[in-house]
Amino acid sequence: MKKELLQRIDIIDKSLDKYLEIRDNPQRIIYEAMRYSVFAGGKRLRPILMWETAVMCGGAWETVEPFACAIEMIHTYSLIHDDLPAMDNDDLRRGMPTNHIKFGEDIAILAGDALLTKAFEVVSLNKFADASRAVRAINVFAAAAGADGMVGGQTVDLAAEGKDIELTDLQYIHLLKTGALIRAACVIGAITAGAAEQEITAVDDFARYLGIAFQIRDDILDVTGSEAELGKPVGSDAESEKNTYVKLCGIEKSEELVSVYSDKAKAALDIFGERAEFLKRLTDYLVIRNN
Amino acid sequence: MKKELLQRIDIIDKSLDKYLEIRDNPQRIIYEAMRYSVFAGGKRLRPILMWETAVMCGGAWETVEPFACAIEMIHTYSLIHDDLPAMDNDDLRRGMPTNHIKFGEDIAILAGDALLTKAFEVVSLNKFADASRAVRAINVFAAAAGADGMVGGQTVDLAAEGKDIELTDLQYIHLLKTGALIRAACVIGAITAGAAEQEITAVDDFARYLGIAFQIRDDILDVTGSEAELGKPVGSDAESEKNTYVKLCGIEKSEELVSVYSDKAKAALDIFGERAEFLKRLTDYLVIRNN
Repeated sequence: MKKELLQRIDIIDKSLDKYLEIRDNPQRIIYEAMRYSVFAGGKRLRPILMWETAVMCGGAWETVEPFACAIEMIHTYSLIHDDLPAMDNDDLRRGMPTNHIKFGEDIAILAGDALLTKAFEVVSLNKFADASRAVRAINVFAAAAGADGMVGGQTVDLAAEGKDIELTDLQYIHLLKTGALIRAACVIGAITAGAAEQEITAVDDFARYLGIAFQIRDDILDVTGSEAELGKPVGSDAESEKNTYVKLCGIEKSEELVSVYSDKAKAALDIFGERAEFLKRLTDYLVIRNN
Repeated sequence: MKKELLQRIDIIDKSLDKYLEIRDNPQRIIYEAMRYSVFAGGKRLRPILMWETAVMCGGAWETVEPFACAIEMIHTYSLIHDDLPAMDNDDLRRGMPTNHIKFGEDIAILAGDALLTKAFEVVSLNKFADASRAVRAINVFAAAAGADGMVGGQTVDLAAEGKDIELTDLQYIHLLKTGALIRAACVIGAITAGAAEQEITAVDDFARYLGIAFQIRDDILDVTGSEAELGKPVGSDAESEKNTYVKLCGIEKSEELVSVYSDKAKAALDIFGERAEFLKRLTDYLVIRNN
């Protein structure tokens, strides 16, 4: 699986490189800051999920390419802004200085803004064979990234920090903060490939469960991983009083939940038969990962 | 003219209110912060320009409504982020506490992000009669707001602060920072109304010249206006070492430039004949304004 992912990452990165080409103009620093975080070694999970969902639904890389790059830009902008001093105040990300440490807080804010905006520029750049399908995908995309999606999740997460919260509150935060974009990745893959409504619903179910399993694994890794694997200090979530599954349920119960949700995710894809093979293997790979 | 503008503002605000309805969910604070700045007494210049351009090109309020609201959201997000401590560090805007003073820096960053994202959600919400026209308008919108538009202008402006720059540098900053969105407002009005390419070009010329005249008037008002009129201390630009037309050319030459550019703006609309009457009157009104 690792080799298959690296092949895909290579293709995704070539497209990202094209869309984020530095122009030799007075604001070139903003492109440098955007590229710094986009090319900081991301796993391209969301683009790969979108791409493979599209393939499963009869599409191809060409049908999702702009949206796949755009979702990575949105993911990256969210990391840049989350790391800011006024937010999580992180100096390191994947073992490298965060954007505001490298470029200053002003440029980091603007680089995030520019990536978010570039995402919508990229998805509207092409003449689409089916423009109304593109408009629908843009809407899913924006809704997932905004006040009732990712930004909403970060808002609730900030308010919850340092407080004792219930498991349902934690689930709500993750559903929005990380879950919404993972769902959008898969749903957009299906929409742009021209999937039937029933297929879009199945893909959405898959992505919702996968997102939960993925997040719980993240929480477990923060406690059990090594600093080299994680690219950040072990236990940094616990230290900053972040609410995590491990804190609320313990390691053992968390491991069990990973299994439950990854099984649910795979089951949701059964209607696709053999075409779901890659995404099912990817699910297994993601929930047993060590970084 | 004032009464005609107030009538339009009323209609625009009703639509903005609808799109920014507070939902009773755990992240409702983010909607409150978004609304706080959107409803802080903006003049709705960009929505009105878009609307009237659409009407001039044969469209109506209904054809531009989502884009008109979206451009005000983008304008507002840019003000929220520009006011942040890491950027211009302003405590007051239109005589009221800025977003981060009222809600804290973390929520202000997120409210800006959410408004920018909401803008793209709103413009992709409807089923458009002509979806490829909508995709084109979305692309103009994103390009104008991003790294080679508004965000790029803010980037160059921050780098220039406190330095001696040439008039051409100042013009470059304004072309991007405030000009790009004003041009997008008018061009999108024309595109969504189904204007011919030649008309779109004329509208773009109009908006480019109007943007310059408007910005020079802004710079002059910072020196000659009263605090009550401006909603901020007089001379605050000069104090913060902002580069302005007045600083580089003096008041007299700046006044002359306002006339030159507003005349060019109006001349660009001559191909529309009598249909350009409102926008020409609006141009005169905007460049003789006192706030």
